[in-house]
Amino acid sequence: MPAKQTPETPETGLATVRAIVFDTFGTVVDWRSSLISSLEEFGRKRGLEAAWDKLVDHWRAAYGPNLHRVRTGELQWTILDQLHYYALVELLPEFGLTSLPESDLRFLVNCWHRLSPWPDAIEGLRRLRKKYIIGPLSNGNLSLLVNLAKFAELPWDVVFGADLFRHYKPDPETYLGVCNFLGLQPGEVIMAAAHNYDLKAARALGLRTAFIPRPAEYGPGQTTDLAPVEAWDILADDLVDLAEKLSA
Amino acid sequence: MPAKQTPETPETGLATVRAIVFDTFGTVVDWRSSLISSLEEFGRKRGLEAAWDKLVDHWRAAYGPNLHRVRTGELQWTILDQLHYYALVELLPEFGLTSLPESDLRFLVNCWHRLSPWPDAIEGLRRLRKKYIIGPLSNGNLSLLVNLAKFAELPWDVVFGADLFRHYKPDPETYLGVCNFLGLQPGEVIMAAAHNYDLKAARALGLRTAFIPRPAEYGPGQTTDLAPVEAWDILADDLVDLAEKLSA
Repeated sequence: MPAKQTPETPETGLATVRAIVFDTFGTVVDWRSSLISSLEEFGRKRGLEAAWDKLVDHWRAAYGPNLHRVRTGELQWTILDQLHYYALVELLPEFGLTSLPESDLRFLVNCWHRLSPWPDAIEGLRRLRKKYIIGPLSNGNLSLLVNLAKFAELPWDVVFGADLFRHYKPDPETYLGVCNFLGLQPGEVIMAAAHNYDLKAARALGLRTAFIPRPAEYGPGQTTDLAPVEAWDILADDLVDLAEKLSA
Repeated sequence: MPAKQTPETPETGLATVRAIVFDTFGTVVDWRSSLISSLEEFGRKRGLEAAWDKLVDHWRAAYGPNLHRVRTGELQWTILDQLHYYALVELLPEFGLTSLPESDLRFLVNCWHRLSPWPDAIEGLRRLRKKYIIGPLSNGNLSLLVNLAKFAELPWDVVFGADLFRHYKPDPETYLGVCNFLGLQPGEVIMAAAHNYDLKAARALGLRTAFIPRPAEYGPGQTTDLAPVEAWDILADDLVDLAEKLSA
């Protein structure tokens, strides 16, 4: 008779973890579907027609390059709300939307403050919160993240926005800033994300890592981040599974 | 027949308020009773005798001068946990406690992370949270405040510790830093405190003010902050009354 197999223990070495910080857009909330519904509803109310889903995808696509401009110093420190605003203004003409009043622009930018959580997120976070300090570590600004948490009822203990550090992920100042504010060693903090680049940066600084694939984040035909590119400390199907794997 | 009196409306002019930040030690939690119990229990376990209540009072009394040294630049930026540590080490000999191991010193300093809320605090905050963004604005460091919130189950939306600003109240950087991070004008934020000095500094910068007297904060014989020294925007008996007066 074969020896009984040791049960899988993904938490090996994670006994000292005290806090988990979460990438938010994509990992905790489903920004794409939420924005598409919000923009479609806006269009109906205003009697405007546009390829709203494509607008959302282009809007998100502007994210990387804009952050890069801030990270390289080409653009001075600018919060995400403002980057969203700039990108929107630049995009609207190609979608035939040329004369929206300022109040509409603000409304659209604030749609990023009202995104729905993935179905597993609230249950997973509630369970994890009983055992760990939990909070977002997001490139969103603090006010965006606080509004989002109230809207989506995310049960955070603390909120880390990029403006606390005046740096965007994957700059080390963000991950190390979290450890410093929490008074914890990097090895006592897990970075949880649906994006490999985020975990790579966190691991390089000594944080522990949890990958939660979100294959529908970018809609049909997503080709990135479908699988872990390194052996992250934890691989979880979703946030409930993460709680499960951490016995929370 | 006399004209019917207009009901008291303390919230006049407060319709634009979106967030309330709370002084924490004294206003939300009863640090003195909590610390005295913790230290007495520590003494019993260690078989040590000391005037624990007096030690607590002296420890807290060191707070003002130490903060002042940081605020004037005499001492470089130092978080409250560390100031508590320094003050404790300095005080222990006069209480006959000279050879406590480092682990005991850390334990005692961390007693400030486990303080009980005043009886009205949780209900008041829960109600206020439904209508406003709520968080501490305290001279405690973020990690202390997060641990305290978990211990006392304070339902904060966001946590502002002095280390976010590297300034202690009543420095303007703290109050204005909160407004900036929340993306709000000072007039959209209420500072709620049991201490007149705190409200005075907040009002000078345009924040709205709520005074909650805590006549037992410093134990029997308290002589300070028993009454408002200015006509603050709201005067509430406790945090439930504050919720009541703001129709939350």
